[in-house]
Amino acid sequence: MPLNANEEAFLRAFGRAILTVPRALDADLLREQGMSMSEYSALMFLSEAAGRRLRMGDLALASALSLSGMSRIVDRLEARGLVRRERCSSDARGWEAVLTKAGLDRLKHVWPTHLASVRRHVIDHVHGLDLPRLTAAMQRFAVETQMGTALQDPHETSCPLVTSTPGLGE
Amino acid sequence: MPLNANEEAFLRAFGRAILTVPRALDADLLREQGMSMSEYSALMFLSEAAGRRLRMGDLALASALSLSGMSRIVDRLEARGLVRRERCSSDARGWEAVLTKAGLDRLKHVWPTHLASVRRHVIDHVHGLDLPRLTAAMQRFAVETQMGTALQDPHETSCPLVTSTPGLGE
Repeated sequence: MPLNANEEAFLRAFGRAILTVPRALDADLLREQGMSMSEYSALMFLSEAAGRRLRMGDLALASALSLSGMSRIVDRLEARGLVRRERCSSDARGWEAVLTKAGLDRLKHVWPTHLASVRRHVIDHVHGLDLPRLTAAMQRFAVETQMGTALQDPHETSCPLVTSTPGLGE
Repeated sequence: MPLNANEEAFLRAFGRAILTVPRALDADLLREQGMSMSEYSALMFLSEAAGRRLRMGDLALASALSLSGMSRIVDRLEARGLVRRERCSSDARGWEAVLTKAGLDRLKHVWPTHLASVRRHVIDHVHGLDLPRLTAAMQRFAVETQMGTALQDPHETSCPLVTSTPGLGE
């Protein structure tokens, strides 16, 4: 049975937001701070981790990027002195990314831009909604899907979550 | 001012869903039908278009992919006889992608898989929410952001929409 009209309208709005919100946040941050959302997120995850350090694999997982993708991001952050790589204390073959003092300062400096951007593009529009209930629902979306799986070889992905009955255009 | 706890929890849930839902839908479709969500979406947009045909640029825009990314997808669909390329009638330099009869049949065959997947990962979890109100809110997210902009050179993007005050980990 096809989705009903309310379900389909929601799905289309969600599918659109999935594409536009990351792009809007990324554009604001790049324009105002010269930093991408991927770079910002990496700094943020490090700032929240114990000792402000994470194994490269865990940082990639948290960011839902491939290890090679995260490695390129850490290269760029390292070149600017915001992150440094260190050998894992527990595993001589592994590397950790460590947030530097300069990285934390930079993150604190950039944060207000990102916060304003998130408010403008998302949070300003959710007033009047039952936010805890919505959050609980959204936490159940694709709940068995790990953020970090299947990222060895990412290919182009678009996600218009369209489910109307095929062939009804024309 | 930082987000309040409800706002931040919502943002994290939304940021997570942005990453996991497309992946879950893609995985289901690949496993059960050997088709990616990008391929499915392209067929769907064509099925909804007048004459079941779209200029390559418009198809890329609808899918929020770069023209080169969409071109690769159409290559794969064309090789399977699901789409064919034709010169634009209105512009001899342009190309259109046209859904074939086999493409429409394939789309109709695949659709129940995608529908079940969308229900399982998303729609089954929104009962009890004020869906029209939620849809209206979500339609205002990043409202000025075009689906198809800034796609000439897509780079790795992750979008954990984290906005907690920096440096509070540890």
